[in-house]
Amino acid sequence: MKKQWYGEAFKLGVLGGGQLGRMMIQSAMDYDVHIYAMDSSKSAPCGTLAYEFTEGNIQSYADVMAFGKDKDVLTVEIEHINVEALEDLEKQGVKVFPQSRVLKLIQDKGLQKDFYKENGIPTAPYHLINDKSELKNYTNRLPFIQKMRKGGYDGKGVTSIKSISDFENAFDVPSLIEEKINFTKELSVLVARNESGEVKTFPVVECEFSEELNLVEFLFSPANILPEIENKATELAKDVIEKLDMVGLLAVELFLTEEGLLLVNEVAPRTHNSGHHTIECNYVSQFEQHLRAILGLPLGDTAIKTAGVMINLLGDENHEGPAKYEGMEELMKMQGVYVHLYGKPTTKPNRKMGHVTITGKDIEETKVKARNVQNSIKVVTF
Amino acid sequence: MKKQWYGEAFKLGVLGGGQLGRMMIQSAMDYDVHIYAMDSSKSAPCGTLAYEFTEGNIQSYADVMAFGKDKDVLTVEIEHINVEALEDLEKQGVKVFPQSRVLKLIQDKGLQKDFYKENGIPTAPYHLINDKSELKNYTNRLPFIQKMRKGGYDGKGVTSIKSISDFENAFDVPSLIEEKINFTKELSVLVARNESGEVKTFPVVECEFSEELNLVEFLFSPANILPEIENKATELAKDVIEKLDMVGLLAVELFLTEEGLLLVNEVAPRTHNSGHHTIECNYVSQFEQHLRAILGLPLGDTAIKTAGVMINLLGDENHEGPAKYEGMEELMKMQGVYVHLYGKPTTKPNRKMGHVTITGKDIEETKVKARNVQNSIKVVTF
Repeated sequence: MKKQWYGEAFKLGVLGGGQLGRMMIQSAMDYDVHIYAMDSSKSAPCGTLAYEFTEGNIQSYADVMAFGKDKDVLTVEIEHINVEALEDLEKQGVKVFPQSRVLKLIQDKGLQKDFYKENGIPTAPYHLINDKSELKNYTNRLPFIQKMRKGGYDGKGVTSIKSISDFENAFDVPSLIEEKINFTKELSVLVARNESGEVKTFPVVECEFSEELNLVEFLFSPANILPEIENKATELAKDVIEKLDMVGLLAVELFLTEEGLLLVNEVAPRTHNSGHHTIECNYVSQFEQHLRAILGLPLGDTAIKTAGVMINLLGDENHEGPAKYEGMEELMKMQGVYVHLYGKPTTKPNRKMGHVTITGKDIEETKVKARNVQNSIKVVTF
Repeated sequence: MKKQWYGEAFKLGVLGGGQLGRMMIQSAMDYDVHIYAMDSSKSAPCGTLAYEFTEGNIQSYADVMAFGKDKDVLTVEIEHINVEALEDLEKQGVKVFPQSRVLKLIQDKGLQKDFYKENGIPTAPYHLINDKSELKNYTNRLPFIQKMRKGGYDGKGVTSIKSISDFENAFDVPSLIEEKINFTKELSVLVARNESGEVKTFPVVECEFSEELNLVEFLFSPANILPEIENKATELAKDVIEKLDMVGLLAVELFLTEEGLLLVNEVAPRTHNSGHHTIECNYVSQFEQHLRAILGLPLGDTAIKTAGVMINLLGDENHEGPAKYEGMEELMKMQGVYVHLYGKPTTKPNRKMGHVTITGKDIEETKVKARNVQNSIKVVTF
C-alpha cells in the first residue's frame, strides 16, 4: 500500500522558513499536509504557521541531519542548504526532492554552466576563473558579467565588468565570466516533474523591464511572445528538468535574443518569484504543483484562468524598521487585486515584504491597473 | 492614527477552532493578520495553524474572559459562545464582532423569530412553546416542524411533527413550532457590513436537493433564479444585517415558495458552509470579507469570477476512525476541482471532513463535473 501523504502519519520537512515556505504551507493546508520547517529564527515567515518549527541553521550539517532524519520527504525553499547532510539523509532512506545532486550542481554556477554545455542546452558563452588575477586573460571579451560560482542570491554576487578599470573591484573568488547578452526579453518557465516522470510546464512568464526606473518593474502572464517561442521555451524547460532527472518544481530563466534564440540564464530548483501569479491566475498554483510533484501525486492543470501581473512589494529605500503598508486600503478597493504579505516584522531597503497580483481581462488592461497599484502602495516605517 | 491591523501589534481572537476558523487563518495569512484561536482541543482544525492556540471551553465565562481580555478584536466561527463574557469584554473595550447582542439573539431561535416579526422580515408562521405538553394546543396546525430554541446545530435540534402520535417523541424543552413551508428552492445570501456601515452581498447561492438521495447534494452559484428574485433576496439580506446593526459576515438562509415569496429560514452571524465556493469563484472570499468587515477595512468585490458547485466531504456512514480519502488522486487530475481538507484526524458518519469546489464555464457543465467528483471520492478509514 502506498504511504499516506496527509494527516499526522506523514512528515514533510521544508528547509528554509521564508515566504516561499509560507505560501507552500498555505497551499498544503488544503490537503492536510503537515509541514515541519527549519530556519534560523522563529520570526521567519513560516515561524508560527508550520505544523512544527525548528530553529536551526540550514547550512549546518548537524542541524540539517537532526531535522531531516525523521521526515518522510524533505524539500527546500532556498537552494543554499548543506548538501552533505542531504546526501547522507538520502542514504538513510529519506526522500529528498529536489535531490541532493541537483542542489549541489545548482549551488555552483560553474557546474551549472558546465552541465548546460555537456547536455547541449543553449546558454551564454562563459569561462571559469579561480580569482580576479585571471581576468586579464579575457580583455578581448570585454564587456562581460562576472558571477561568483557560489553564494550569490537575488542579484548579489553578480557584477558588470565594462573595462579593465573594473578588474580591481571584481570578485576575488572562483567565478564565471559570461558574455553580456543583448536580449529583447527575459522569460521564465516553471516546470514540474514527479517521481513517475510526469512533466508539466506553466505558460511562459515575461519580465517587464522599465528603462526609466532601470529595474524589473513586474512580471506578467501570458508572455507577449510568438507561439513558436512559447513552444521552444516550454520544450527547453522540459529538456532541462529531464536532463537534471529532478523531482519537484524548477524555474528556468531564459533570455530571448535579438536573433530569436533562447538561452538559459539560470535555474532555481524550487518555487520562484516568477510563479507567484499562479496562485490566482492558473488552475494549479506553483506551490501546490511543487507539493504534488514531491509527494508522488498527479500534477495539476497549469492552464491560465486569467491574465495577471505580479509586483513585488519591496521595502522603500529610505526606511528601516517596523513595516507599515501605506496605501493598502486603496488596493483593497480594486477588483482583482490580491495582496500577499509575508509577515516579516521589519522592513529594509529593497527587502521583499510581499507581493501583489493584479488580474484582468487582457494583459494590456491589467498592466495599466498594475501601474496604479504600484503608485498606490509603499512599504515604510511608522 | 488608526490602529494597525497587521503584524505583532494586533491580536485578533477567534472563538472556536474548526474548519471555518482554519480557512479564516488561511485567508488572514495574506494580510499578516495574527489569529489567536481558542477551542477545546489542540487537535482542532486550527490547532497548529493559529498564531497562538489556547485550549479552553467557548461556553465557559471564565475561559472566554481570560482569552478575550487582551485581544483587539474578538470574533467567532461558531455561534454557541458564552455571551455574558462577550458582554463584559465589550464593556472593557474589546471590540466583539458580531456583537454580543447579535449572538444572544441568534442563539435563541425564539428570539430570532420574534426579531423577524417585529422588524417586518418575512418568515414562516410560528408559535413558541415551553415544553411538549403544549403541543396539544396546536393540533389544528399539523404537520409542523419543531425546533429547539437553543443548542441546535447542523440540523440537530430540529424534528418533523406529522401527527399527534409524534408528540410523545417531541423535544421537551422551550421550542418553536413552525409551519412546514412548501418551498421550491432553498437559497442563501452572504452579506457583510463593516463599522462604517458599508454593506455588500455575495450573489445568491442555491441548494441542490436530491429527491433520490433525500438530502442536499450540493450548493451552486450563481443560483438558477430570475433577476427579480436575486434582487429581492439581496435586498432582504441587506435589510436583515442593517436591522440587526451587525458588523461582520452574516449568512441568510431563505426559502423561495411556490408563490414566489422569499422567507427567512434562519441566519448565521459568521462565515458559512454556503460560502465556501467564494474562495475560488468570487473576487473576494467570504473569509477575507469577514476579516475586512471586522477590521474596519473596505469590503471586497463580491462579483462572480466563475460558476461553481460546492460539495461537502462527509464521513462515510459505515466508517469511524483515522480518515482516509479514497479516490483523491482521481479528483486531482480534473481541471478546476479544488480540494479543501479540514485536517480532522478521525472520520465519523456524516462528519464534515472537507469540501470540494468544482468550477466550470457554466453551471450545467459544472454540475455534471460535480456529480463525477461526488462519485469518485469517499471518506473512509484504513
